[in-house]
Amino acid sequence: MQEISTENSFRLIEPGPILLVTTSLAGKPNVMTMGFHMMVQHAPPLIGCVIGPWDHSYQALRETGHCVLSVPREDMSATVTEIGNCSGADVDKFETFGVDTQPGTRSEAPLISDCVANLECHLVDETLSDSYALHILQVERLWGAADWREARLLHHMGDGRYSRDGDIVDESQRMTRWRHLATLGKN
Amino acid sequence: MQEISTENSFRLIEPGPILLVTTSLAGKPNVMTMGFHMMVQHAPPLIGCVIGPWDHSYQALRETGHCVLSVPREDMSATVTEIGNCSGADVDKFETFGVDTQPGTRSEAPLISDCVANLECHLVDETLSDSYALHILQVERLWGAADWREARLLHHMGDGRYSRDGDIVDESQRMTRWRHLATLGKN
Repeated sequence: MQEISTENSFRLIEPGPILLVTTSLAGKPNVMTMGFHMMVQHAPPLIGCVIGPWDHSYQALRETGHCVLSVPREDMSATVTEIGNCSGADVDKFETFGVDTQPGTRSEAPLISDCVANLECHLVDETLSDSYALHILQVERLWGAADWREARLLHHMGDGRYSRDGDIVDESQRMTRWRHLATLGKN
Repeated sequence: MQEISTENSFRLIEPGPILLVTTSLAGKPNVMTMGFHMMVQHAPPLIGCVIGPWDHSYQALRETGHCVLSVPREDMSATVTEIGNCSGADVDKFETFGVDTQPGTRSEAPLISDCVANLECHLVDETLSDSYALHILQVERLWGAADWREARLLHHMGDGRYSRDGDIVDESQRMTRWRHLATLGKN
């Protein structure tokens, strides 16, 4: 994984891929699957996400204020589903599902080695954290695999089925009003 | 378009498609393109979205409290981009881009006829509307085209490029913990 500008966050999040989220509390890391999230602002990059008291990761996020969002590869649908199907209260999911990690740089939450990208985030707004379990994160550092620009993503259809990215249609020449987005981040 | 249970909202929104948003203010309807949105809650269905003062639709949403989210078909990338590239302050976008509509049932905001689905929404929480332009919507009525379950969606890569849904991977048999989501809504 190489470090890339955090301004690229929207290129990974706006397409709407399913995500993995790592946290760590009291020396014990955990990973969950998350489907409810969105970009909130391009730069500095803010992301909204729903992680609730029903998730074992919730306490770690609220207490430490840190997490890592990992963008899975298109061939990871089985692992992503299994991770979402059990709780870190019962299982060491990294060991059980053979998920390799490397240390994060901003907190104890690890990066996932075989993902398309890892976004190291911290919690910047908890206004809706109690009412809707909706947290606002800011991306602090962004790590991309060598193929992060081309990698195909996995989209959760909500019920355990996933669509994989197919072909790409380029309409960027029509997007004159938002031309700056064509070059924002990128390298 | 046939009416389907609003509990199906997550099936259309969680995969992360680019959306069109219609509003209407003082008898004048408008349509915009939106890439920053997410499911917040399954049932009753809540959706978070970012529509800001830089969008002509912002005033209509804040003043009327209503909008319609339309899920474009995979072949609509040119129209979706052109709609996002100009302002309703200058252009009647429905006429300019040949977008057919039909009346909504909960407000003056129209449904888009040739989309996969139309979600009639009202604004239920404005706590973060001023700080982040982040609004919480509740889906009141949901209309689906005959093929809404199978239709392939369009995901914005942020810079005018779109990925179209390719093949579908079914991992639903692994999702025992969230089994109820396999049948929630559906019809």
